[in-house]
Amino acid sequence: MNEHRRAGRQARAAERQSKASGPGRPYIMRNIPTYDILGEESLRKIEAATDRILAETGLIFRDDPQALEMWRKAGAKVTGDLVKFEPGLLRDLLRTAPAEFTQHARNPANSVRIGGKNVVFAPAYGSPFVADLDKGRRFGTLADFQNFVKLAQSSPNLHHSGGTICEPTDVPVNKRHLDMVLAHLELSDRGFMGSVTAEDRSEDSIEMARMVFGRDFVDQNCVILGNINANSPLVWDGTMTKSLRAYARANQAAVVVPFILGGAMGPVTTAGAIAQSLAETMAGCALTQLERPGAPVVFGNFLSSMNLRSGSPTFGTPEPAIGSMVVGQLCRRLNLPMRCAGNFSASKLPDGQAMMEGTMSMMSAIHCGTNFILHSAGWLDGALTMSYEKFMLDADLCGALHSYLDGVVVDDNALAVDAFAEVGPGNHFFGCSHTMANYQTAFWDSALSDNEPFEKWEAAGRTDSATRANRAWKMTLAEYEPPKLDEGIREGLRDFVARRKAEMADMWY
Amino acid sequence: MNEHRRAGRQARAAERQSKASGPGRPYIMRNIPTYDILGEESLRKIEAATDRILAETGLIFRDDPQALEMWRKAGAKVTGDLVKFEPGLLRDLLRTAPAEFTQHARNPANSVRIGGKNVVFAPAYGSPFVADLDKGRRFGTLADFQNFVKLAQSSPNLHHSGGTICEPTDVPVNKRHLDMVLAHLELSDRGFMGSVTAEDRSEDSIEMARMVFGRDFVDQNCVILGNINANSPLVWDGTMTKSLRAYARANQAAVVVPFILGGAMGPVTTAGAIAQSLAETMAGCALTQLERPGAPVVFGNFLSSMNLRSGSPTFGTPEPAIGSMVVGQLCRRLNLPMRCAGNFSASKLPDGQAMMEGTMSMMSAIHCGTNFILHSAGWLDGALTMSYEKFMLDADLCGALHSYLDGVVVDDNALAVDAFAEVGPGNHFFGCSHTMANYQTAFWDSALSDNEPFEKWEAAGRTDSATRANRAWKMTLAEYEPPKLDEGIREGLRDFVARRKAEMADMWY
Repeated sequence: MNEHRRAGRQARAAERQSKASGPGRPYIMRNIPTYDILGEESLRKIEAATDRILAETGLIFRDDPQALEMWRKAGAKVTGDLVKFEPGLLRDLLRTAPAEFTQHARNPANSVRIGGKNVVFAPAYGSPFVADLDKGRRFGTLADFQNFVKLAQSSPNLHHSGGTICEPTDVPVNKRHLDMVLAHLELSDRGFMGSVTAEDRSEDSIEMARMVFGRDFVDQNCVILGNINANSPLVWDGTMTKSLRAYARANQAAVVVPFILGGAMGPVTTAGAIAQSLAETMAGCALTQLERPGAPVVFGNFLSSMNLRSGSPTFGTPEPAIGSMVVGQLCRRLNLPMRCAGNFSASKLPDGQAMMEGTMSMMSAIHCGTNFILHSAGWLDGALTMSYEKFMLDADLCGALHSYLDGVVVDDNALAVDAFAEVGPGNHFFGCSHTMANYQTAFWDSALSDNEPFEKWEAAGRTDSATRANRAWKMTLAEYEPPKLDEGIREGLRDFVARRKAEMADMWY
Repeated sequence: MNEHRRAGRQARAAERQSKASGPGRPYIMRNIPTYDILGEESLRKIEAATDRILAETGLIFRDDPQALEMWRKAGAKVTGDLVKFEPGLLRDLLRTAPAEFTQHARNPANSVRIGGKNVVFAPAYGSPFVADLDKGRRFGTLADFQNFVKLAQSSPNLHHSGGTICEPTDVPVNKRHLDMVLAHLELSDRGFMGSVTAEDRSEDSIEMARMVFGRDFVDQNCVILGNINANSPLVWDGTMTKSLRAYARANQAAVVVPFILGGAMGPVTTAGAIAQSLAETMAGCALTQLERPGAPVVFGNFLSSMNLRSGSPTFGTPEPAIGSMVVGQLCRRLNLPMRCAGNFSASKLPDGQAMMEGTMSMMSAIHCGTNFILHSAGWLDGALTMSYEKFMLDADLCGALHSYLDGVVVDDNALAVDAFAEVGPGNHFFGCSHTMANYQTAFWDSALSDNEPFEKWEAAGRTDSATRANRAWKMTLAEYEPPKLDEGIREGLRDFVARRKAEMADMWY
């Protein structure tokens, strides 16, 4: 089979996959339980450790006097920029946060429900580099960013456009957010994330959303997310808390996430890292409720491990995977929507290591009950590199996880007792009526895996999965068509971007 | 870094990994719960469907009049070679089977406990082909078989020598079992599996075990396993049941396994395939108890899916993975040791597809509570090919799963509350006393993953994980040293093999 025909076949397979997942499936509602690995006593011990960290060690809130004032008024003990919390204070504040909420997309069919039993897959976030098999690794550009928005929009297995999918390093640091938000709104009609790297960039992002959704609608509904990182251990920087408060003020959802590499920004023991993470996240989430009670907020978590011989961070390893299950349990006890885990790897290539690590990590997100899975696709080299091929492989895995989350249906049709009577011992089920009635929806159909007999695979060029992914992303970009956007809104957005860019001198750091 | 130094570093990493896992850790005792995905009502529905299949459709037992006679005496309804079972009959018979048992290894330190909370990793089984990156795919030989026994014996992450790791196709079909059992006993001192392809080959295998362990000991203890496959759907062939009975008669453990590709040897719906599997496995396991009540037996399961466009079987897909969780629940209700899932893939190469599929499948074995995980390492191309490189990558994954199964320890040391007080907000944990006290056992240390910074990885030759695995298996074979074996026993075994070979004409099919 020549390359063109093969690629065409893969595209048709992808389309079938899309239909099997069903139109109007903008996110997944899980039909499998969460995997709860710790009992009540252990969970209480972790919560008690968190309470002690909050009360005895405390958290620093840097460069945000307003936040300190809010903590003081809420009853926390503020000494300089150190804030200590009596047990129960943060939990009380968190009671006003919604257990789940809708993030509206500009195409209403793509709006996602975040929280509860719902699962949303979003692309990876934040890489300065991009890579593909043809050109290797280089700094990301706006063109790369736009490519990834197109690839995400085209995938039947992702649900969200993500945020800073890669850094558009050819655009000044203080203007990138404008081009990124514009790309999300022009090239995609799914939910997306805005900038958080400065308070005014957060506000620009939200303002652009208002131009699309309307000012009043945005005040009452979530249309944009902001990913807010703690400066672990136990520090919240003002840049982040001001952005967090900007999102909350606008009734938009902050995703509140510590970043803990065990042994560096936290203890090497998983239970301790989780206790720390819980402290940092509860404080960040509670601050959104001080800014605007009832604002949506997502309880985020990011655990990783370290190679303690070299000091290198490691990703997709077993300790964070199993730790995620505990985080899921703790988050559910707070009744908040959760972001946890993703498709992590330290590999530099879309190879066996990348997919082993990514799959272990992604399965932990699925099992722990995560609602919003950032970093679902593309991540390589510890988030330093966004890979075109891994993006396609990961999105294919996300397709498999749709079927996984559907669980096992147990009803008369699925049990097929009559089919055994029809077929009888020793005969095959290929053409039986039960097979004919069920085969089209029976099994996940990968767009990238090769399941052919060896000889057919050999005749088709002995490809590995990275090579097939390379062909797939090129074909997807070639076939991409932008979703419709009202021309008046497009004009308005472009004018806004041009005006804001003109108001600022370029900053490159 | 040159290749030699890099390989040496990997070997040292592997050695450290071995020590971290601990000497005297011949198998794993799981410290995480099983992942139970169905509730009581759904499980009962599946069991009721199984009861109907057994009572209304029945199973065929071909070419084994003795088995039919045993079923008749046990109260089953036998018509020709069709056997039907009233609900409850098989469950009653299974009550004499032990819930767990020890398989003794010739090195007592390597004996494994099968059942309960214990997990044993064994290599893949049954491939006619082998492959490596240098020479591609070719038929397996006895030299390949011996290589894989050596690789398994050398791995700190596997616990068992397995069985027909690959077919030694250069040895006549009727004599292979002698060379394979000899290799397991000479080149490994771990538990192993004997032949099942004919009753006399089963008995030869057990006889060789008796020469090592002693006749009386073998009569009272399990020292060899036999993997017995149903001819799904709903057929047991006499070759298999006679071998099954030979193992049971000798008080050795049959591993009883259907082989169901949904849509071919069973329904396309997972619940139906599970109901069928339960029927086939319960019948096979019960037959061991008719042969010898109290004989150890392992409840086996093998689910897979199919590409319903091409008819190709698929492996490592989500439906069998999630189905395994249900099988685990059903098996625990029978109180039997379980074999389920493994490191499956349809890929022809040790690439991203192979490790994505393998990891998803292997995680299902871990979550569903499997006790004996056959096919833990090496499997490619739907079991047609045993891959040297995938063997090493899979064994590395097995190392990660040791840490995964250890779960999350929650005690004062792990919670590290004092460390937060010592380190304080904003400071790193690199040198703190908690880190120094815990770092050596904190994180799994992969022997094959590259976690180095990009520049170091680039300078070291930009290897992918398959290339590193290629170096690792060569070095492992170069450094392999056989375990000690009493010379008298060795002589006896070799004489036995020579005598049995001389007694038979070569058969090549």
